[in-house]
Amino acid sequence: MNDELRQRCDLLRSLHVPGSPLILPNAWDAASARAVVAAGFPVVGTTSGGVAAALGYDDHQGAPAAEMLAAAARIARAVDVPVTVDAEAGYGMSPRELADALLDAGAAGCNLEDTDHATGRIAGADTHSEWLRAVRGEAAERGHGLVINARIDVFLLDRARTQREFLDDAVARARTYLAAGADCVFPIFLADADTIAAFVEAVQGPVNILAMPDAPPIHDLARLGVARISYGSAIHRRAMQEATAFLSDLANAANRS
Amino acid sequence: MNDELRQRCDLLRSLHVPGSPLILPNAWDAASARAVVAAGFPVVGTTSGGVAAALGYDDHQGAPAAEMLAAAARIARAVDVPVTVDAEAGYGMSPRELADALLDAGAAGCNLEDTDHATGRIAGADTHSEWLRAVRGEAAERGHGLVINARIDVFLLDRARTQREFLDDAVARARTYLAAGADCVFPIFLADADTIAAFVEAVQGPVNILAMPDAPPIHDLARLGVARISYGSAIHRRAMQEATAFLSDLANAANRS
Repeated sequence: MNDELRQRCDLLRSLHVPGSPLILPNAWDAASARAVVAAGFPVVGTTSGGVAAALGYDDHQGAPAAEMLAAAARIARAVDVPVTVDAEAGYGMSPRELADALLDAGAAGCNLEDTDHATGRIAGADTHSEWLRAVRGEAAERGHGLVINARIDVFLLDRARTQREFLDDAVARARTYLAAGADCVFPIFLADADTIAAFVEAVQGPVNILAMPDAPPIHDLARLGVARISYGSAIHRRAMQEATAFLSDLANAANRS
Repeated sequence: MNDELRQRCDLLRSLHVPGSPLILPNAWDAASARAVVAAGFPVVGTTSGGVAAALGYDDHQGAPAAEMLAAAARIARAVDVPVTVDAEAGYGMSPRELADALLDAGAAGCNLEDTDHATGRIAGADTHSEWLRAVRGEAAERGHGLVINARIDVFLLDRARTQREFLDDAVARARTYLAAGADCVFPIFLADADTIAAFVEAVQGPVNILAMPDAPPIHDLARLGVARISYGSAIHRRAMQEATAFLSDLANAANRS
């Protein structure tokens, strides 16, 4: 690993401070990554949903791994700050292949989720933590200080139930993933303030919360001890809504002519 | 060439009707191309500026040809309507290489501009028309009914002078390019209504006008006999402005917390 990427990994890791969260907007291409940096943010995250849409594929590993990782490499090449790559569930790659691919892409960090896309169900906690441990080990063998954000999908898979019901499972997974070498845990779609507080208290490690309309604002998430706040595909959706509004206006103008 | 691409070339060519212009919004990736189709437009154009920015490069052949053409292929694959590819000045490729690349990308049409990016100056009209003729010939050898939109850059290169001063040069180039096998001519940045009228009248062939704030609206361009109206990088810029506004609001919110 070159010194520049080493420094970017160290910087990214150091910005995970409970109570003073890293604000991490997510980009889908080089132009949006540059916009994130121009707005003053110290790190760029990628959104697998946005990247897949830009490439013409569905989210949730609908795109070929090689295309997703090539897009990640273009994003990392376009900016001079750490880039953390949403690598979904690792695309069925072995830990060795995935570690090679993330190093080649210039990723300072990655998201790895515990949904098993082959079945659409959540992976067993032990199976997944062993896999995370192996990815960590392979990255370490390459001297790659990859910052691993372990996404926990228990709140995502059955949103009808209340978030409290999932808390014990999510906490157990978080502890296991952190023990396996994850740097941060990401219970995606966890948005209830009391449940966030209980999760952070129980986990005792860096926690990433997805900013959503029904999640607490930044100030409250900081107060709850959150270490990282990310935006998923929200910025991509907003940009595309604007393009769609332009196109709708244009279609109306064309029909009037 | 397969039947599907043949039909798309025929459809694209048939939509160039003077007085009833093809309204051609420009996409930069698969998601924006799908948004164009969803809004009801029958054809997708690409914008080299938007595609280059999305890939992390400057416009005007700042990106490697292979990356630009791979992006064009992703766009063409993502939609089931004709796609016309902004191929800039052909990236220094020979007519044979360019014809192969455009066919491989699934392009129903292309823009080819007469700026010589090696010098930053406009190419000689005869040299450029011979090159266009060669591209047309190579496409024909492949059975590819490629719709060639020949961009004329005389209004682009020295915008300080009045548009009337460039009219004779632009008209001479248009006639030469059409005679060489171009299907449409595109005097980019021509926006003055009287000069557009004189250009259309003198050229006697399909004319593409770039929609700009100071250009006449669609209805007036139709009345002037224009056959195609495109939007360049305007839609990409607007989407990115929206992303930038989101990021600016977010940076302010983060600083207040």
